[in-house]
Amino acid sequence: MNKKNQDKKEIFELKSNQLTASKKDLSEWYNQLMLLADIVDDRYAVKGMAVWKPYGYKIMQNIKRRWDELFQNAGIQEVYFPLIVPIEYCEQNPSWWQGFKSEGFKVIAGTDNKIQGIIRPTGEPAIYPMYSMWVRSKNDLPIRFYETVNSYRYETKSTRPLIRTREISVWHEIHTAHATREEAEEEFQLHIKLWDELWKDLALPSFKVVKPIWECFPGAIGAVEYYSTTPNGRVMENGSVNNLGQAYAKKFNIKFKDEKGKEQYAWQICTGNGARLLGGLILIHGDDKGLIIPPRIAPIKAVIVPILFKGKEKIVLEKAKELSKELKEFDVYLDERKEKTAGEKFYEWEIKGVPLRIEIGPKDIEKDSFVLVRRDTGKKEIISNKDAKKKIKETLEDIQDSLLKKATEMLNSQIKDAKTLEEVKSNVKSGKISRVFWCKEGECYDKISETAEGLEGFGSDLEKKEEGHCIICNKKTKTKLYLAKSY
Amino acid sequence: MNKKNQDKKEIFELKSNQLTASKKDLSEWYNQLMLLADIVDDRYAVKGMAVWKPYGYKIMQNIKRRWDELFQNAGIQEVYFPLIVPIEYCEQNPSWWQGFKSEGFKVIAGTDNKIQGIIRPTGEPAIYPMYSMWVRSKNDLPIRFYETVNSYRYETKSTRPLIRTREISVWHEIHTAHATREEAEEEFQLHIKLWDELWKDLALPSFKVVKPIWECFPGAIGAVEYYSTTPNGRVMENGSVNNLGQAYAKKFNIKFKDEKGKEQYAWQICTGNGARLLGGLILIHGDDKGLIIPPRIAPIKAVIVPILFKGKEKIVLEKAKELSKELKEFDVYLDERKEKTAGEKFYEWEIKGVPLRIEIGPKDIEKDSFVLVRRDTGKKEIISNKDAKKKIKETLEDIQDSLLKKATEMLNSQIKDAKTLEEVKSNVKSGKISRVFWCKEGECYDKISETAEGLEGFGSDLEKKEEGHCIICNKKTKTKLYLAKSY
Repeated sequence: MNKKNQDKKEIFELKSNQLTASKKDLSEWYNQLMLLADIVDDRYAVKGMAVWKPYGYKIMQNIKRRWDELFQNAGIQEVYFPLIVPIEYCEQNPSWWQGFKSEGFKVIAGTDNKIQGIIRPTGEPAIYPMYSMWVRSKNDLPIRFYETVNSYRYETKSTRPLIRTREISVWHEIHTAHATREEAEEEFQLHIKLWDELWKDLALPSFKVVKPIWECFPGAIGAVEYYSTTPNGRVMENGSVNNLGQAYAKKFNIKFKDEKGKEQYAWQICTGNGARLLGGLILIHGDDKGLIIPPRIAPIKAVIVPILFKGKEKIVLEKAKELSKELKEFDVYLDERKEKTAGEKFYEWEIKGVPLRIEIGPKDIEKDSFVLVRRDTGKKEIISNKDAKKKIKETLEDIQDSLLKKATEMLNSQIKDAKTLEEVKSNVKSGKISRVFWCKEGECYDKISETAEGLEGFGSDLEKKEEGHCIICNKKTKTKLYLAKSY
Repeated sequence: MNKKNQDKKEIFELKSNQLTASKKDLSEWYNQLMLLADIVDDRYAVKGMAVWKPYGYKIMQNIKRRWDELFQNAGIQEVYFPLIVPIEYCEQNPSWWQGFKSEGFKVIAGTDNKIQGIIRPTGEPAIYPMYSMWVRSKNDLPIRFYETVNSYRYETKSTRPLIRTREISVWHEIHTAHATREEAEEEFQLHIKLWDELWKDLALPSFKVVKPIWECFPGAIGAVEYYSTTPNGRVMENGSVNNLGQAYAKKFNIKFKDEKGKEQYAWQICTGNGARLLGGLILIHGDDKGLIIPPRIAPIKAVIVPILFKGKEKIVLEKAKELSKELKEFDVYLDERKEKTAGEKFYEWEIKGVPLRIEIGPKDIEKDSFVLVRRDTGKKEIISNKDAKKKIKETLEDIQDSLLKKATEMLNSQIKDAKTLEEVKSNVKSGKISRVFWCKEGECYDKISETAEGLEGFGSDLEKKEEGHCIICNKKTKTKLYLAKSY
C-alpha cells in the first residue's frame, strides 16, 4: 500500500488507555475494545487487514476447536486447498471470475510479472476442479470436506474488524458432493443442525431464513441464511447453508458413471462462516465495562486477583497459587503483577470479559474462603474453599445459560410484525427487525424492500405457523419476510 | 497460471493404485506415497502448491498441536499477522525487498491494478513494524509471540511436496524482542531445548550446527541450524534458531527508553519450521510397504480389521465394535468396509503407516483375544482381551522409541570423520555426511566446500569435545565442519 492509500485507511486510534465509550455508542465502543481487550490491532498498514492479538486469537481458536469437533464428529474431514487460484480454474466459472477481476487480489510473479492467478476470494474455484479430478465413479462419493482458511476481497466499502474485512480470517467452509439429490438434501439438513449447536456454544442467538431463490448462488436450489442482530437493531449476515444442486458440478465437470454407465453430475452442498461469529457475539454481550466472553469459549474462565496487604503478601500469594492449581481445569489465570493495584486489575479483566473473578485477601484466608464475582451481573458471593470446584462449574454454566437467555430475549423483542409498509418503516426506524406476510413473489419483495432507504429483505421464516395475506398483493400466504438494516 | 506455465509444471501421476517403487528409489517412493497415503495431492494447477488431503492434514495438525503445547507452556503466545506485506513495510528492509522483488508473489488490486504489496515470504517485514508501534518502554518487553501461517516464494527450482514448495504451509515462526542481550540469549537457549523436545516426538533425529556468521541473517549475532538426513545420505535443512542481536530492531525501529531516558534498541530472537518436518520424517521412516507414522503424531494409532467368515460376520463385527469403543483413547479406526477384503485393507493401512493393526476373527473371539501386528517390525502377537489397553499402550511406546533409536543409529552411521579433502569427497560420494576439523575461517571454509560439486558446508558442531588441526591451514581447533549434499 502506498502513502496515498494509507491516507485513505480509516485508522482507529485509542485516545487513552481507558474505555471511554458507552455501549450506546456501539461503533466507538466496539473499536475501542478491539484494541483495549487485545482482540485485533487494525493499525496494520493494509486497509481491512488486522493483526490478531493473543487474547482475541485464543478466543477465535476456541471457537474453531468447537467447529472442528462438530464437523469431524459428523464425519466431515479437514483438508486445505492452496491460496492461489490459477486463471485456468477461474475461467471454468466465467461470471464469478468477471466479478472478482475487480473485487479480487490478483497475484503477479517472476521477472516478467505475469498474472499467476487470484488470491482465494471463495473456496469453490480452487476446490471443485480437484473434485472433478477425484470423482470417477459412485464409489468416490460422497466427498465431505471442510477447510479453515483466510479469504481475500478487495472490499471498497469502509471496513470493520472481524465483520467487514479484506482478509476474511479464520473462515471455515464445507464443500460436499453426493451421488443423489436426496443425499445432498440430508446433508443440507445436517448442517443446519450443526450450526444451531455452534451458535448455542457462542451464546449467540440468530434467526434463520430461507433465501429468495434470486438471492441464492447462480443455479442453486436453495439456501438458508443465518443472521445475528446488534443491540441497535441492525442485522448481520452470519453464514449460510447452500444447496447448490448440480449447478457447480456442471460448471466444474464433477461427474461420475452410474450403474447403467450413464454420466451423472454430482449434487453439492456448501456452507461457510468465520470470525464474523466473534464480531457478532462481541456486539451482543458486553456492557459499559467491556466485553463479556461466554464461558464455553473463554480462554480464561476465571482470573484470580490476590488482595495484598502489607505483611500478608506471602500467605495470600501462597493461597492464591494453591487455588490456581486446584482450579486448573477452568483455565484460571493468577494475576500476580506487582506494579498494578487490585483495582487496576479488576478494570483490565472486566474489559477483557473474563466470566469470573476470584478475590482472595487475608480475611478470606482466615475464613477458608474466597470472593467470587460474576462478570455478567457483578454479583459477589463468598465461597468456601471446599466448594470451590463445584461452585465455579455451576456458576460458569449459569453464566453461559443466562447470556444466551438474555440475548434470545433481546432478539425476540427486536422482531416485530408489521401489517403495512408504514409500520415496516417505523419499526425499522425504531431499531426493530420487521416481519410481514409475503406471497414469495419477486415483485412484491421489491416493493416491500424499497419502503425505506437502506432497508433489506432477508428472506422468509422457516416456521410458517400462521396464515395471513401478502401486504402488497393480498394473496393468502404462510410465509413471512424479514426486513431490517444491515450492520 | 497459463497453459505455458502448466506445461512446465512437473506433474506427478500415479501409474497404478499400487505402491510400485521400492524405498531405494527414494524420490519415486516419496512421490507415490504422497498420493497413495492421502498426504497431499500435487496435481493442483499451480506449481509447488498442493492440496492437503485429510490423512496428511491430520498428521500435520497433530504436529502443530504439539508445538502449540510446547510454545504456549513456555509462555510464548499465538498471534496472526496479515498475509499481505505493504510496500512501505518492505521498504524498511531494502536488501530483503530487493531479493523478493523477483522471488516473491506481488499483489495487484483495484481497477487500476496497483501493486498493494507482497504476499508474506517471511514473517519479519509484517511483524516488526507492529513491534515498533507496540514497544515504547521497557514495560512493553519482552514480546514473545509466534504464528503458524503459510509463506510464499516464487521458487524457480523444481519443487517437491512438503520439502520445497511455493506455498510453504503450516509454518510456525517465533519472533521475540527483549530489553537486554542476556535475556535474548536465554531465550535463544530455550528454543533449542523446545525444538529438541519436538524432534523427539517426531522420532526424527537431527544434527544441529552453529552456522558460520556469513551465512546468518545480515547483522545477526549467530544461529543454530537443524538438519535431518535422508536414507541416501543427503541432508535437509529443517529449521533454525536465530539470534538477531539488534540488527532488525535498528532496521524496523523497535526501541524503548531505559531508566535513564536513553533510547535503546531491542534484542531479538527468531525461529521457524513447518511441514518440512513431516517431509523429513516420512523420508526417514517407512519401507517398501509404505509409510510408518510415529505413534505420538499418528491420527490413527491402531486400525481394527475384522476377519469375516461366512455366517460369523455378525459376531465378529460386534466384538470389533466393542473393542473399538474400549480402545477409543488410542484413536482406533474400525475398518468395516464390505467391498474390500481383509488383505486389501492390510495393504492400504500399511501404506498409510498406521502403527498397529488389530485382527479379529471367529477363532480369536473363541479365545477371548485378538492378533496385534506392529507396522514397524511386522511382528504378530496374540493379545488377551483383558490386557488390551495395557498392551497397546506399551507397544505404541515401544514403536515410538524404537523408531527414534533406529533413525538415530542411521544418522550416527551417516556421519563420518575425514582427515583429508579426498576423504571428504569419497565420504560424500558413498552417501555419508563428512566432518572435518576446521579453523572457523572463511577462506578455509571455501576451500573445503569447493572440494566436490554440490557439496555444502553446514556449519560447525556444538560439542567441541576433541582437538585437532584444520585440514586446510593446519591451525589448532576444536571445531568440526559438517559437509554433505542437500536433498
